[in-house]
Amino acid sequence: MDDKQFDEMIEEVIEDVYEDVYEDMENVEEALDELLDTVKALLERKQYADLRDLLLPLEAADIASLFDDMDERVPVLFRLLPKELAAEVFVELESDHQELLIQGFSNAELKEVLDELYLDDTVDIIEEMPANVVHRILAQADPEMRKSINEILKYPEDSTGSIMTTEFVDLKANMTVEDALKRIRRTGPDKETINISFVTDEHRHLIGVLGIRALLLAEDDDIVGDIMEQNFISVQTLDDQETTAQVLSKYGFLALPVVDTENRLVGIVTVDDAMDVIEEETTEDFEKMAAMLPSDKPYLRTGVWEAWKARTPWLLMLMLSATFTGIILTHFENALAACGILTAFIPMLSGTGGNSGTQASTAIIRALSLDEIRFSDLLKVLWKEFRVSICCGICLAVANFIKMMLVDRMLMNNPAVTPMVALVVCATLVGTVICAKLVGCALPILAEKVGFDPAVMASPFITTIVDALSLLIYFRFATMLLGI
Amino acid sequence: MDDKQFDEMIEEVIEDVYEDVYEDMENVEEALDELLDTVKALLERKQYADLRDLLLPLEAADIASLFDDMDERVPVLFRLLPKELAAEVFVELESDHQELLIQGFSNAELKEVLDELYLDDTVDIIEEMPANVVHRILAQADPEMRKSINEILKYPEDSTGSIMTTEFVDLKANMTVEDALKRIRRTGPDKETINISFVTDEHRHLIGVLGIRALLLAEDDDIVGDIMEQNFISVQTLDDQETTAQVLSKYGFLALPVVDTENRLVGIVTVDDAMDVIEEETTEDFEKMAAMLPSDKPYLRTGVWEAWKARTPWLLMLMLSATFTGIILTHFENALAACGILTAFIPMLSGTGGNSGTQASTAIIRALSLDEIRFSDLLKVLWKEFRVSICCGICLAVANFIKMMLVDRMLMNNPAVTPMVALVVCATLVGTVICAKLVGCALPILAEKVGFDPAVMASPFITTIVDALSLLIYFRFATMLLGI
Repeated sequence: MDDKQFDEMIEEVIEDVYEDVYEDMENVEEALDELLDTVKALLERKQYADLRDLLLPLEAADIASLFDDMDERVPVLFRLLPKELAAEVFVELESDHQELLIQGFSNAELKEVLDELYLDDTVDIIEEMPANVVHRILAQADPEMRKSINEILKYPEDSTGSIMTTEFVDLKANMTVEDALKRIRRTGPDKETINISFVTDEHRHLIGVLGIRALLLAEDDDIVGDIMEQNFISVQTLDDQETTAQVLSKYGFLALPVVDTENRLVGIVTVDDAMDVIEEETTEDFEKMAAMLPSDKPYLRTGVWEAWKARTPWLLMLMLSATFTGIILTHFENALAACGILTAFIPMLSGTGGNSGTQASTAIIRALSLDEIRFSDLLKVLWKEFRVSICCGICLAVANFIKMMLVDRMLMNNPAVTPMVALVVCATLVGTVICAKLVGCALPILAEKVGFDPAVMASPFITTIVDALSLLIYFRFATMLLGI
Repeated sequence: MDDKQFDEMIEEVIEDVYEDVYEDMENVEEALDELLDTVKALLERKQYADLRDLLLPLEAADIASLFDDMDERVPVLFRLLPKELAAEVFVELESDHQELLIQGFSNAELKEVLDELYLDDTVDIIEEMPANVVHRILAQADPEMRKSINEILKYPEDSTGSIMTTEFVDLKANMTVEDALKRIRRTGPDKETINISFVTDEHRHLIGVLGIRALLLAEDDDIVGDIMEQNFISVQTLDDQETTAQVLSKYGFLALPVVDTENRLVGIVTVDDAMDVIEEETTEDFEKMAAMLPSDKPYLRTGVWEAWKARTPWLLMLMLSATFTGIILTHFENALAACGILTAFIPMLSGTGGNSGTQASTAIIRALSLDEIRFSDLLKVLWKEFRVSICCGICLAVANFIKMMLVDRMLMNNPAVTPMVALVVCATLVGTVICAKLVGCALPILAEKVGFDPAVMASPFITTIVDALSLLIYFRFATMLLGI
């Protein structure tokens, strides 16, 4: 394609870039992938004006995801963006690219970006940066902002204080609605949200909240103190961020006030931050349940070395804990030698046990994290899992008996699979399923009670315990029924 | 405690009920549990006025959760609530209690509740009700509402249309800001949100969106068409509800417009609905990955029979598919008889293989559901997992060799564990981990490509495949290195 053709094509692409990308929201990622090639071509040809026209219409999150695929060319691309959009994109970038950019910024450029950022985003960025970059950021922030940043940085990781912002609309109870709206109009542009305002007294104690809807529907001369909601939910700076996110989700709030121990309003948490927290915590739960150490990077950005570090410790521990099953098997070596066919069903038994246990533990862990069950429900849960496991166990045992008789004995023509052997296997199956479900449901609840993470207690750990139990049951039935 | 003491205690409880319950958001559930006993006692003594005072200050979601523990007494309690609160509580109740209430409502009562509900909530309720209840609801809805309900009910389950509401603020491009604010004040009370307004032309085509902040910050005589956002993202009625929820989350929107195939605005989806969808879909993913059929009820409300139905099919299938491992073991019966110690390490090998595979598949499934990877990344993913698996495999093999020599051979004094046997086990370990990681990462991506659910392809299925592969590798190495 010659230059003229290329320019014509680019003109066309630029014309409808927004529509093309966002026409079908189910395929935005594919559309962005296609765009990436165009971005690369334009960058190579140094057609910066076209590149800018191409990027400008896109949503900040998507510009950031394009940039994240460009690595060392991010700074060139970033400088094409107008100030405000640049800041929005900056927030959405991966932290290594943020660092790369900050390292390349002049002090003036850095200040310009910082001025456009919301406070909570600034803090999020700082938390990922090395010390020298943090110093530069703090040096460029204006004194008031620096104070707020330092304030928020003090809160422990995963606390509500660490995700809140201090940029909220605060009103006084004696204001009229007209005053309040004026104040929102004046200070609104710098606030994280204007959908909810917070009413404080002279000591900064939170005494009410007021939604924008109530404010708009009121008369101009109504008094804020009369129309504000006096029964309102607030969270504390040291509450777990997950609790706060769940509160926002459960009650359907758009923002929650955060108070200190003296009930003074110090910040707010908005629904978009809550959604990020929930996504992050869910990913962590998935990782822990699959025996990985949690990582906060997207899959493709995690290096081989990082993945190895996250995965090996638990694999190692679980491998070593399988020593027990080995010991049990060695102990019953003679029984296995006397009746070799028993070996053939060990993987099936341990697999079924593992699956049964995982079903119970997953259901419980999810219910715990959604606050549906508590420690006091333990007996109720055990009783229920006991009944479910008996139903499941019997059903599996019957199916397995039929299968062993038809497939293993008749079809595969294996005379070693006697009805008695099948009975041993099926009885073990029932016992294993019952044990697996009881262990699977009890362990996460007990773990939470003593302050461990229930997700960590999940499948892998339970599988190891159930493996050992199922072998013990197996050999117990074998010695009993087969006389070996 | 005599009646007088009881009354005094109740007075005290009522005094501070809101503060007591919501003082510490980390322990709301415990506080509600304590309240439940008081509610039951008051109900028994028929002290309805006190009961009402006790309930009124609470959040609707919490009143509903109290009610859900009261079963057949729900109707009595429900009638204590004032109209508006009653409707809010009604929405939050479990569907069997909603049905119980509707069955007991007079037509007038039903109409009163329906009038207070938002449209999307009404539709959610209807979707769970049996046909005769649906008929009654539709009969009591006013004609316009009935039309809207029927419209939404037409959309397939899990589509965006099925979760949207048609109660949004619509503006015209030629309105002034003053007109727009007047319109919002007038129609706002019945709308799901006033935070975002939607601008349509005369054919109901969506041509812009306008946030309340922009509206408040504009001058009274500015024209809506000039200040509205013309580049905006919309979703289609038939888009998957999960896509829509992810879009809201990714871009941090408070509401998204939903258009039909001709780009006519038909509804909106708000962020609280998106959070519900995400929670629901996440729970489904957890369930599927643990080999359960998804259920939409909370754990404690799922009956034994339902739990059995959700859990048995996959357990059965996975149990039967373990037939393969059984066949492999039977096939190598002679090798096992010749070198019985090999049996002792089978559970460890299959456990480690299963865990390795689950690690990879979980990371991939989560990345797929967050839209971080796509089919085109398959080779990249395979290459990365290959490198990670070599590192993990070697690390585990070394640890295992040392352990087998020190613990099994020396400590347990088992002469059968020769260095050669250890070598066989360790070589198998490396091979198994590599296979497990490759199968674990590839299977979910391939499943999504051909239109299956990647979560269903997760751990249990992969474990079965990996079990079989690891045994084949084991016996291959055993025959090669031990000459059996």
